[in-house]
Amino acid sequence: MSAFRSIEWLNEGIVRLLDQRLLPQQTIYNDYTTALEVAKAIKEMVVRGAPAIGATAAYGLVLTAVHTTATNPAHLRQELSESDAILRQSRPTAVNLFWALDRMQARLYTCPNDILTIQQALLDEAHTIATEDVQINRQIGLNALPLIPDKATIIHHCNTGSLATVDYGTALGIIRTAHEHGKQVKVLVDETRPRLQGARLTAWELQQQGIPFQIIVDGASGYFMKYEGVDLCVVGADRVAANGDVANKIGTYNLALVAHAHGVPFYVAAPTTTIDLATKTGDEIEVEQRPLTEITHIGQEKIAPDGAPASNPAFDITPAKYVTAVVTEKGVITPPFLENFQRLFDSPSFFS
Amino acid sequence: MSAFRSIEWLNEGIVRLLDQRLLPQQTIYNDYTTALEVAKAIKEMVVRGAPAIGATAAYGLVLTAVHTTATNPAHLRQELSESDAILRQSRPTAVNLFWALDRMQARLYTCPNDILTIQQALLDEAHTIATEDVQINRQIGLNALPLIPDKATIIHHCNTGSLATVDYGTALGIIRTAHEHGKQVKVLVDETRPRLQGARLTAWELQQQGIPFQIIVDGASGYFMKYEGVDLCVVGADRVAANGDVANKIGTYNLALVAHAHGVPFYVAAPTTTIDLATKTGDEIEVEQRPLTEITHIGQEKIAPDGAPASNPAFDITPAKYVTAVVTEKGVITPPFLENFQRLFDSPSFFS
Repeated sequence: MSAFRSIEWLNEGIVRLLDQRLLPQQTIYNDYTTALEVAKAIKEMVVRGAPAIGATAAYGLVLTAVHTTATNPAHLRQELSESDAILRQSRPTAVNLFWALDRMQARLYTCPNDILTIQQALLDEAHTIATEDVQINRQIGLNALPLIPDKATIIHHCNTGSLATVDYGTALGIIRTAHEHGKQVKVLVDETRPRLQGARLTAWELQQQGIPFQIIVDGASGYFMKYEGVDLCVVGADRVAANGDVANKIGTYNLALVAHAHGVPFYVAAPTTTIDLATKTGDEIEVEQRPLTEITHIGQEKIAPDGAPASNPAFDITPAKYVTAVVTEKGVITPPFLENFQRLFDSPSFFS
Repeated sequence: MSAFRSIEWLNEGIVRLLDQRLLPQQTIYNDYTTALEVAKAIKEMVVRGAPAIGATAAYGLVLTAVHTTATNPAHLRQELSESDAILRQSRPTAVNLFWALDRMQARLYTCPNDILTIQQALLDEAHTIATEDVQINRQIGLNALPLIPDKATIIHHCNTGSLATVDYGTALGIIRTAHEHGKQVKVLVDETRPRLQGARLTAWELQQQGIPFQIIVDGASGYFMKYEGVDLCVVGADRVAANGDVANKIGTYNLALVAHAHGVPFYVAAPTTTIDLATKTGDEIEVEQRPLTEITHIGQEKIAPDGAPASNPAFDITPAKYVTAVVTEKGVITPPFLENFQRLFDSPSFFS
């Protein structure tokens, strides 16, 4: 368990989020009691990271259930439907958000029509999503172990650790597992402009775990591959299409191209919930465009001249051909992804 | 002529530099009267950009000549030799620094042994270097015209404009010439971490020139090539090796690899003074390692956690195979670079 919790449910009916916008300088927790507030927190990136967003949205829906003033189940279901719609509009790219809400809806659909029962069922389901996320991450780490040399320099992009998940992490979970199993890993941490999740969050997590690292600028990956030697890259994913195209934080595609040019393996760590068979290719994935001030300002510091235009896509799509493997809790999936994902989903579920 | 001067010689024996560290928020000029101060200004990046550094160093040497208290030429030559050594230690990668000082030394070598004559000769030589730089940049822009489509989206890295030169610019000079010749150019400005020369300086220059642009993060170039279409990339150079390997601002190599993967032409704009036939390949070029605070802090804003390590190479080397052409004042040089550079240097000088 990490020393902090990215997301916590308090029994009095509160979702507590660690405000990731303020890390590492300040450790502030914010409390939320409505789905609308939670949707806003997701949109403004108090919490971020595909698995963390999914679990947060699930708990956000529970808030509507437990604080309802509805006097009959039909009215509560109406309120839940409105909250669901609001939560779905918070961020468009990560599929885990929709997956978690779909799962909550499925539970609701089969739930006896009684307010107390609905409240308990939704809370149970959110807790299950959260608990499974941690188990899944640990299994991803174990499944990746054979891919990590005993002494490895690894480039990592964005943040995919405990902060991006309920706990443990996906791509950072792989690094953490390798470290815990005695492998000598050293991480080159892409700072990850514009929001600097690498320099702010990943550096902070690695520091706490005692894993050696250096922060580098995103444009330096080629330099390090060429002059210092890099054994592999590992990143998370916000959505993986059926053909293996990967939507992830802006800069991932460049890193994949640079890795490809150097023959460096490029691994994507993703729970199977991030694989979206309904999305045929990356071209179908909506890429969120975020505020330009993320580029023109850093914190309170203005960088660009007054009125300078910018363009700020938050994600990019890495074509499947640049992905060496997708590491899931059910195993390491290699190309051809279309066939192998299908086989994965047809097999018995790891956790069922 | 630009509305500002990056470098100016004042007749009372002062080198005036526009402090580029404070742009675009503040326009402050600093005055220097010793070579040692000028070397420090180069090291701390008050002035930057390979051609600008060369001209500044030349003027720095003139300061020693005009403010000397030497009573005989031998003593003055000794002082100049010490200043030359100090200036050469300011920054290691850009060859223009060494080229300009070599040229000053050559002038000194043939100069009659008289203090007043030496002072005038060195000032003349520095002025010539500065004047030629502007002419060279304009010619580079004209030579590149046939390479620029009438409607072109161009990715540009770092700053290579009037600020990086005595005036007009190299890669940005190409963009400026195309714009002045009625071509519809739009520039995607790599912000260029860690020092943000793109967001701070290039955006500021393009804004003043009325050239359409958008600032993007360095990791987004692949996204824009894939989804919005990019016609070409153009960058400057700090040193071009005899085989065509190009040392330039960190992030250039990544951009070249990404351009290569998309079949986007990758042009390097460089005066012939940046081509260093004495450097056989890029492997021989010393890459400056700069302070880690450039990555862990932005201005007064601390990003990374306390004590987080970083690695900050200021330049990278782009192998010649990823360079479509080097645009010089003497013409557009295409591969094979080794042979074609040799031919270029064997031909009569453009400006002699």
